[in-house]
Amino acid sequence: MELTGVFAAITTPFNPAGDLQLDRLNQNLAAYQRTSLAGYLVLGSSGEAICLDREEKIAVLREAAAAGRGKILLAGTAEESLRGTLDMTEQAAKFGYLAAVVRTPHYYKKAMTHAAFCAYYRELADRAALPILMYNIPPLTGVDLALDTILELAQHPRIVGLKESSGNMDKLVRLTAAQPRLAVLVGGASTLYPSLCAGASGAILALGAAAPEACCRIERAFRAGDAAGASQAQHAVLAALRAFEPHSIAGLKAAVDAGGYFGGPPRLPQLPVSDAARAAIHAAMAGLGQSSSAAR
Amino acid sequence: MELTGVFAAITTPFNPAGDLQLDRLNQNLAAYQRTSLAGYLVLGSSGEAICLDREEKIAVLREAAAAGRGKILLAGTAEESLRGTLDMTEQAAKFGYLAAVVRTPHYYKKAMTHAAFCAYYRELADRAALPILMYNIPPLTGVDLALDTILELAQHPRIVGLKESSGNMDKLVRLTAAQPRLAVLVGGASTLYPSLCAGASGAILALGAAAPEACCRIERAFRAGDAAGASQAQHAVLAALRAFEPHSIAGLKAAVDAGGYFGGPPRLPQLPVSDAARAAIHAAMAGLGQSSSAAR
Amino acid sequence: MELTGVFAAITTPFNPAGDLQLDRLNQNLAAYQRTSLAGYLVLGSSGEAICLDREEKIAVLREAAAAGRGKILLAGTAEESLRGTLDMTEQAAKFGYLAAVVRTPHYYKKAMTHAAFCAYYRELADRAALPILMYNIPPLTGVDLALDTILELAQHPRIVGLKESSGNMDKLVRLTAAQPRLAVLVGGASTLYPSLCAGASGAILALGAAAPEACCRIERAFRAGDAAGASQAQHAVLAALRAFEPHSIAGLKAAVDAGGYFGGPPRLPQLPVSDAARAAIHAAMAGLGQSSSAAR
Amino acid sequence: MELTGVFAAITTPFNPAGDLQLDRLNQNLAAYQRTSLAGYLVLGSSGEAICLDREEKIAVLREAAAAGRGKILLAGTAEESLRGTLDMTEQAAKFGYLAAVVRTPHYYKKAMTHAAFCAYYRELADRAALPILMYNIPPLTGVDLALDTILELAQHPRIVGLKESSGNMDKLVRLTAAQPRLAVLVGGASTLYPSLCAGASGAILALGAAAPEACCRIERAFRAGDAAGASQAQHAVLAALRAFEPHSIAGLKAAVDAGGYFGGPPRLPQLPVSDAARAAIHAAMAGLGQSSSAAR
Repeated sequence: MELTGVFAAITTPFNPAGDLQLDRLNQNLAAYQRTSLAGYLVLGSSGEAICLDREEKIAVLREAAAAGRGKILLAGTAEESLRGTLDMTEQAAKFGYLAAVVRTPHYYKKAMTHAAFCAYYRELADRAALPILMYNIPPLTGVDLALDTILELAQHPRIVGLKESSGNMDKLVRLTAAQPRLAVLVGGASTLYPSLCAGASGAILALGAAAPEACCRIERAFRAGDAAGASQAQHAVLAALRAFEPHSIAGLKAAVDAGGYFGGPPRLPQLPVSDAARAAIHAAMAGLGQSSSAAR
Repeated sequence: MELTGVFAAITTPFNPAGDLQLDRLNQNLAAYQRTSLAGYLVLGSSGEAICLDREEKIAVLREAAAAGRGKILLAGTAEESLRGTLDMTEQAAKFGYLAAVVRTPHYYKKAMTHAAFCAYYRELADRAALPILMYNIPPLTGVDLALDTILELAQHPRIVGLKESSGNMDKLVRLTAAQPRLAVLVGGASTLYPSLCAGASGAILALGAAAPEACCRIERAFRAGDAAGASQAQHAVLAALRAFEPHSIAGLKAAVDAGGYFGGPPRLPQLPVSDAARAAIHAAMAGLGQSSSAAR
Repeated sequence: MELTGVFAAITTPFNPAGDLQLDRLNQNLAAYQRTSLAGYLVLGSSGEAICLDREEKIAVLREAAAAGRGKILLAGTAEESLRGTLDMTEQAAKFGYLAAVVRTPHYYKKAMTHAAFCAYYRELADRAALPILMYNIPPLTGVDLALDTILELAQHPRIVGLKESSGNMDKLVRLTAAQPRLAVLVGGASTLYPSLCAGASGAILALGAAAPEACCRIERAFRAGDAAGASQAQHAVLAALRAFEPHSIAGLKAAVDAGGYFGGPPRLPQLPVSDAARAAIHAAMAGLGQSSSAAR
Repeated sequence: MELTGVFAAITTPFNPAGDLQLDRLNQNLAAYQRTSLAGYLVLGSSGEAICLDREEKIAVLREAAAAGRGKILLAGTAEESLRGTLDMTEQAAKFGYLAAVVRTPHYYKKAMTHAAFCAYYRELADRAALPILMYNIPPLTGVDLALDTILELAQHPRIVGLKESSGNMDKLVRLTAAQPRLAVLVGGASTLYPSLCAGASGAILALGAAAPEACCRIERAFRAGDAAGASQAQHAVLAALRAFEPHSIAGLKAAVDAGGYFGGPPRLPQLPVSDAARAAIHAAMAGLGQSSSAAR
């Protein structure tokens, strides 16, 4: 399984009343299909999966799979319980996803030991309908998948990768040195170039849903051995990130709007961005010269 | 609305395969009905609500309400999205719960600002079918409901209380000094007596599901002005807490077993306790002299 | 050794150029001598000990001991190295201090294990010229003296107490239940009453240097078994704390000024408070009705 | 001022009684002089500066400057107070150091605001006898010099660089993109290669005192545009780091011993490493093939 390149962690469109807009999702994917993206993560953190009910999640998985055919399809299927995750993974398998991206369970933090993570991911990988990428995002979960846990789980033949959104470069270096077989897809756009230097296979990026080509440029320059070009492309995305990242998914969705796709409002409890923040996000995105590549 | 005394944060029984055991739930409540508990929190953190699906949650709410009639019934109804929380609160209202206990949304941590919390709880309180208790548990959620946010939300006539499980005594003193109207129910059994001295109205305790009378004794001595007795009763529960708390819900359920009720195994990703830990928990609980009060 | 009651963690006066003002220190102590304070902690965190050189520290210890005779004198003697701490403790012993209060070493955090803390305090207690109180203040040091470490060190006959400024009420309850011999002096004025209920022997308070009688009132009501009076006295100090605590030592010194003593400016890197903050501190302190008790 | 390449953060030799061993320091430097190191940081965190008294610090600065002549000499001169730092910087200036490396003040964490850091470093840079490198090491200090603070201080003509030991790659990318003039020397050997890709000027490394050539190899391959060689050299140092880093300075000193220099014991409160840890460190260092380059 080849998991390299840049994947967009796509957003889930809602109308102002908070209802799911599958047609908007379809339009976004149609536009993304014309980009250099390697594929999509559907129902990740950027997709507000945690704010959807089961039926909505299935509908999003179905729609995105249909509209994204031809690119690599990854499904976010984590629930807090193993049985919930198995259920969602089974749903995703019906629609043609290549693999499931499964965030660490995390609510009962004291219970999330090395043994518990190993038991969880092993039983999942044994029983799930799709190969598994682990997904570590301590800034949101408050738990961290330790290096030794990752290395132990990487022995399982159906655990094929890791989405690593800890921002921990020390861990990334040690991990890719120890286990070059595991696909490690990083989650931070601001550090994509040094992460690739450190051995990451690729990236799953929220920014990929707003400015896909700007992200792909960084990776392409790196693959071409063009250090100066990669640095320059890396620097080019910083202003956009600084504008939207403090506003969580509401900010990302404003950037998706600015990129020429449909972002729209987040679902409560997240509040839409202020007019001032929206203007700043649009200005920073315009500086990216990205809107030229978007849906038209 | 009188919200004083000790409430048990009850557990949700499963069989070894992880299936819900409503009959066990019923038996536990029948036994709790003969204790001094003021009431129950159903589907709190101790109830593994986050590991149940919608249908299971409704079934638990129905069963517990039927079996617990006559005591004060509180329903944990928090989902990460407002619309999910409204849905579950509407379900709980059908079964006769007095109020909903709603944990802070918390996944998108940067989005969880003062403004977002105020918007969330206000809209919830405006639209929900039950009065609301806010529920703050930073060790599990990684977000903290600030004093100023609580005080602002306490102005809403349908926000009647707070479950405060931060362990922050400074905040508790300031809160009860500033807002004596709000019912503040603490979540920590090891600090129940000083919390009551600091102005807490009562407590919602995991230990209340394992050793209800031991918890009630602390509160009763405090209400009677018996400082020495309250201290002694407080000290009496420490060994049991020390034995089970490091093991999260698996530990609590072993303590519930030891108390003479049905605890059983947790649902994965939580692992059952080791035999050694189980023995230590039983020994510590026996030291409490609590099993005499339990279901027989 | 009787270590109960309220101790002031006194400040160290400087002129605007940052030079030590021993005469001001003397005047402050002369005024404190007429209060109900049990004694003083000289060169604690409130005393900016970490910003003084060796000669200055010796001068402060000498002056305060002379001016504070008759009250219990505690000397802050912690340096980061054991040999530094031994040196300062030897200095303090010359001036008649009853005991040394020794903050945990903390710079090399990974090295600060149970074994290292045990070795440090044991060797210190064996060799030092004074009995030792351990001093735990995680908000400033980033390390925490664990309950088991404290209990093990409490076996040493020359380790007579603990200044506990973690704000951790759970630990305080467990500690006083397990080890009633050790004098535990808490560091938080906002939680003094519940801390005493939890078993603390007394307190060493920054607020004690600004509003000594307001602090002593809380303890007196507690000792008299007057719960309502203790609560009321506890609530009375909250506004003053809220006004000055966010501003660290600069805020405390403004409160000391407001209390009728000499506070003056902190030493750089700490900046003096703004005029607005100073006015708010004075207003809150006036609300305490404390200035009546101070030096004039 | 050219601040590139790899600097060793040298250790301070003690005998088993904890007394300073200046002759050992001299021997170490004589050996380091024959390496590819760009220079030395004397009295950094690795040098246990915080555990030395004023006279010892001056003696170390003098000895190291004499023995290290010809390489770039950087002096760690931070005390917690501005006046202490000015004093030590003045001492260092007498011995021919090129610049002072000044760790953030950090004890009074609430006071360490943007304004306080700006005031501190500006006044220091205005008045100090040497140019200044800021030094940010949140894992030890618990405070973080924010990007905006660094950028503002970088405007000062006498603030020439930053030692950045936060491990925050996002900040490093943003910083070097925004302010290419400032020399940024990173503190983490495990991430040296990606840090250089991200725009770091060079590094000040504890490992540089144990295995200087292994560190220099990483930087040399990077400068030569040899990505594969840099990766390989980066991977080569990981086992050694993993062996000694958990043991803080005691571990580093064991690695210094293993590298063929004089490490010796740390000063209390740090405990020497166990025999098992020492053996593991020697084994990992031997795997580096480094001892061939050291003093013999």
